Amino acid sequence: MKRRIYLKMKTLEEAQRLFWSEFAGYRSGEEQIDSRRAGGRVTSRPVSARLSAPAFHAAAMDGLAVAAKYTFGAADDAPLTLFLENGQAVPVNTGHPLPEGKDAVIMIENVLLSDDGQQAVIRTPIYPWQNVRKVGEDIVATEQLFPTNHLIGPADIGALLTAGCPQVWVRRKPRVQLLPTGNELVQLADLDHAPPPGKTIESNCSVLAAVADRGGAVPQVSPIIKDDYETIKKHLLEAVRSDADMVVINAGSSAGSADYTAQVIEDLGEILVHGITIMPGKPTILGKIEGKPVVGNPGYPVSALISFEQLVLPLLQRMQGMEPTAPETMEAVLGRNLPSRGGIEEFRRMITGKLDNRFICVPLKKGAGAISTITRANTMLRIPASSEGESRGSTVRLELLRPLDHIQRTILCTGSHDLTLDLLHDFLKKSSPAYPLASTHVGSMGGIMAIRDDMTHIAGSHLLDPKTGEYNTSYLKQYLDGKDVALITLVHRQQGFMVPAGNPKKVQDVTDLLRDDITIINRQAGSGTRVLLDFELEKKGLDADNIRGYDNEEYTHMSVAVAVLSGKADAGLGILAAARALNLDFIPLTEERYDLIIPRQYLDLPSIQQLLDIAHADRFKKSVEQMGGYSTRETGRYIL
Amino acid sequence: MKRRIYLKMKTLEEAQRLFWSEFAGYRSGEEQIDSRRAGGRVTSRPVSARLSAPAFHAAAMDGLAVAAKYTFGAADDAPLTLFLENGQAVPVNTGHPLPEGKDAVIMIENVLLSDDGQQAVIRTPIYPWQNVRKVGEDIVATEQLFPTNHLIGPADIGALLTAGCPQVWVRRKPRVQLLPTGNELVQLADLDHAPPPGKTIESNCSVLAAVADRGGAVPQVSPIIKDDYETIKKHLLEAVRSDADMVVINAGSSAGSADYTAQVIEDLGEILVHGITIMPGKPTILGKIEGKPVVGNPGYPVSALISFEQLVLPLLQRMQGMEPTAPETMEAVLGRNLPSRGGIEEFRRMITGKLDNRFICVPLKKGAGAISTITRANTMLRIPASSEGESRGSTVRLELLRPLDHIQRTILCTGSHDLTLDLLHDFLKKSSPAYPLASTHVGSMGGIMAIRDDMTHIAGSHLLDPKTGEYNTSYLKQYLDGKDVALITLVHRQQGFMVPAGNPKKVQDVTDLLRDDITIINRQAGSGTRVLLDFELEKKGLDADNIRGYDNEEYTHMSVAVAVLSGKADAGLGILAAARALNLDFIPLTEERYDLIIPRQYLDLPSIQQLLDIAHADRFKKSVEQMGGYSTRETGRYIL
Repeated sequence: MKRRIYLKMKTLEEAQRLFWSEFAGYRSGEEQIDSRRAGGRVTSRPVSARLSAPAFHAAAMDGLAVAAKYTFGAADDAPLTLFLENGQAVPVNTGHPLPEGKDAVIMIENVLLSDDGQQAVIRTPIYPWQNVRKVGEDIVATEQLFPTNHLIGPADIGALLTAGCPQVWVRRKPRVQLLPTGNELVQLADLDHAPPPGKTIESNCSVLAAVADRGGAVPQVSPIIKDDYETIKKHLLEAVRSDADMVVINAGSSAGSADYTAQVIEDLGEILVHGITIMPGKPTILGKIEGKPVVGNPGYPVSALISFEQLVLPLLQRMQGMEPTAPETMEAVLGRNLPSRGGIEEFRRMITGKLDNRFICVPLKKGAGAISTITRANTMLRIPASSEGESRGSTVRLELLRPLDHIQRTILCTGSHDLTLDLLHDFLKKSSPAYPLASTHVGSMGGIMAIRDDMTHIAGSHLLDPKTGEYNTSYLKQYLDGKDVALITLVHRQQGFMVPAGNPKKVQDVTDLLRDDITIINRQAGSGTRVLLDFELEKKGLDADNIRGYDNEEYTHMSVAVAVLSGKADAGLGILAAARALNLDFIPLTEERYDLIIPRQYLDLPSIQQLLDIAHADRFKKSVEQMGGYSTRETGRYIL
Repeated sequence: MKRRIYLKMKTLEEAQRLFWSEFAGYRSGEEQIDSRRAGGRVTSRPVSARLSAPAFHAAAMDGLAVAAKYTFGAADDAPLTLFLENGQAVPVNTGHPLPEGKDAVIMIENVLLSDDGQQAVIRTPIYPWQNVRKVGEDIVATEQLFPTNHLIGPADIGALLTAGCPQVWVRRKPRVQLLPTGNELVQLADLDHAPPPGKTIESNCSVLAAVADRGGAVPQVSPIIKDDYETIKKHLLEAVRSDADMVVINAGSSAGSADYTAQVIEDLGEILVHGITIMPGKPTILGKIEGKPVVGNPGYPVSALISFEQLVLPLLQRMQGMEPTAPETMEAVLGRNLPSRGGIEEFRRMITGKLDNRFICVPLKKGAGAISTITRANTMLRIPASSEGESRGSTVRLELLRPLDHIQRTILCTGSHDLTLDLLHDFLKKSSPAYPLASTHVGSMGGIMAIRDDMTHIAGSHLLDPKTGEYNTSYLKQYLDGKDVALITLVHRQQGFMVPAGNPKKVQDVTDLLRDDITIINRQAGSGTRVLLDFELEKKGLDADNIRGYDNEEYTHMSVAVAVLSGKADAGLGILAAARALNLDFIPLTEERYDLIIPRQYLDLPSIQQLLDIAHADRFKKSVEQMGGYSTRETGRYIL
């Protein structure tokens, strides 16, 4: 296992400076295009007006064109008559040229016309050039319309046409060649079913292509390239010698035994940077071959995206003469402690929402492998290398991944997860796209704590009180300290044991969990399902210590189902829908109630109103019942 | 002159509510497209994962896959040897599947391999599932990836592919048919030279098409339609019955004698709104024909754009299931008084920049006819109908037309204008697109006042002191109250009389201006050119009162040139470059110095540094000299 090491490790800022300054003068070529289709392009030369606008003195109003000096005597007590028949006053419409000898337009509203339309009485004078758009008032022929490197917007197209410029010189869109490498990669389009064991669907290059496209570049994705020094070298050299302005290899940029990218770039050209002190995104290579920028991009999806956005995209924009725009930022209060490794800048994906008058943010999972941490995030927290993290309750500055008003309208939902929440989200977005629902799954108890701490709009909970057999209410009393909340039933649902299809180990009830040949997967402490399991064990006087796998925890029903499907566990408590989703068998244990907790002050928010309206709607209930394992007999009922 | 009146006048908010709620349920159709090309599109159905990701337990690190339980004894003082030959430890690379029976990966950095690579010594234990990405950790098959009406971003494409969704159902892009109407309109593409007298180049529909395209719609622009009731009716009905989702007529939406749009819409369907209390944008018609939205859009370019952006674009976005995003806003201090008509909401285009730690904004011209007020603006001030304006020094909230950091980097330049400033701007943007230069032209004295009041980074000035023959310095002493500024010469330039080509009235020197047969065009009071004219008149003992047109003022050299070209005046004092630009003759009068005034505190700004570097550069000086009428012999010299 031969290993390279990161010999040219840099901070992100150093890497950006080094890489961008190396190619500072590099511009994609230029081309002359139809001005009507120049939106989003960047001028490659200064543009001068060929025509003036208006090209003639034009009426700015509907009315009568006159020579102003003939109106000077008019007054309320001295009405003046103008004669149309002899051309003293000439009717004009907005935009029409002023007739010879006229220098003002009287608004039609200020004129009393005779019945035959030949005489006009006015009671106020008009001054010269009033209601006239003079030649060149907007644009003067020969003046500079736009300098070089001007990003052309919609209105600019209007100025170009008006100024008589049917075509405009713009930067050619830079071409970026994306080379997916990896023996494990397969194209989804080539698959009939699931990929063969050990194979991974190529997705990074499609993501990077979409980013490049958005940045005004033209991405080209190559077919998948095998992990082999000579093969990579051949394709890389071909790409460098093509008309591409930049080449990106994804991945093989790390220092593993099958990571050839660094070696190939070094052998063909020069490595400027290998390794950047960011997470995700560390295994990035920045290099230069035959004068062109070549990037070795990391393989984990989140790393690939962050590295590309931080280093490649800005260079593609610079090649077009654009100045990359700094992301918008906002402040929010951090909802959890967020430790971070010193010495490395961390890009942490966050969910942010507005509660009363403050923004609250909570982190998503750290892993660079989970693309869902990007798709679910609406903000990004950058924790600098000098920091060992941020603490709960502190105010942090976030970069926006979605528009601010999208974040403002986001409904935060935390606590226990249920699949009907996804259905609710779909119905909500369908009825109006205005209100995104952002869920984090921390179990029922976590949800109640989030309500207590003003960290969420909604919490899902199904906590059984073993003493009373009641759901949720006693916990609210105990933990919410009198906080005024509504408790609304979303669904009743079956809980039971998920077991492999065919139930090979013949699990029948909770006593079976203690068998030597059975390992379970459990839910985390504080989750309603865990409480339920403990309750059932206690009812039968069974000792959890004797259950294999009792301490193996997962955070969602789906993760429990996956653990069973993958053979990691023989059984796990969960909901029917999760079992069905993965074709597992389901041994019903009991039915439980799943409620939504909502602080009463949020009930009047339009977003929450709409959510509750949906919960009451028959079409929603029907969809829930169709999932199986659910009853909506009390859906929408206020317990508190 | 038959006139309609606005019978259904509404406020913007009323009009939006009425129009959008009328078509609230209207969605463009749906289509299934390749997920790789789904960026920017909106889901028309909920999307569920078909595959889990990872699809197998995968190594999250390069290293040795092991069963964790065999490592539990390892410690610094109790190193443990793992054997590769018997499969106790198996080398794996990141992303590879975990071999059967293994549940953890030891990072290669934590392993001491024997020379033959068959034995590995470790000194710390590993716990189960450490450095492993478990099945479904990112995405679980069957879970909902995205709800309906989700805007697909680059990362979402990665999630779709990873989850085994090669295609995705999205909203069809809504089609909007744009009908340009007007007898005066010509297409620039059809012209060889300037348009014939009285004709106007069609530009609005190209601008609106670019806005629609940016908003995810597919615009179609029809050929120009004559202003004729039957012709408009025929084309409108055709458009409504085509596959267009919306039809926009530009223009004829006002109440003039040739404004047929309202009548046609009324006859074919229903007018919901005619007239909106905004400026620009008042003559807007919102209607409905055969169930489809039909809009009569105003004809002035700024009106057309604002009306379209406020009413049409959001509906096109809603048709796609998008929630329109509210524009970003910022606060700035208003640099001038800004009176506004009560009862009408005014959209005022502004230039904003950052001076020290506060943002300053100044208004551009009001006129709806000047597209340049949009192309030059970086912000928009909306003055509500309830307000009669805003006063200088008050803090106002602006909508951003460019990204905030673009505004932050903007160099404000006010005062006298010179064509070399445009050249400077071009060189500045060429050397780095980072620093836009925003000029407003208020004359030399206006510039000095702006410097005094901290309203600009730079002022251009060429004020002659008649007593000393010196430029600028005495004015700075008199008006700047000791403020510490640098005074830097930009150019020396010729001033002289611009006269029609061939100099038909034989203007020779300043005494000719008093002739009965000569009308001049003057510059505004406070401009350096006006001071210069007065100085020359005084030298010869001539009385300005005897000059025809002395009180006719223009604000720029170019406007003076235009006045001469259009025959409005026989002569005007100005610079050679302006005369040359419009092929006028030029009778030199004198040479003057044109300086830049820069408060010393701004000299260290990177933007100003770069500007001054350019002023010193030979290639800039060479370009200036090539314009004619300029000398750069002292360009860049510090006077103060």
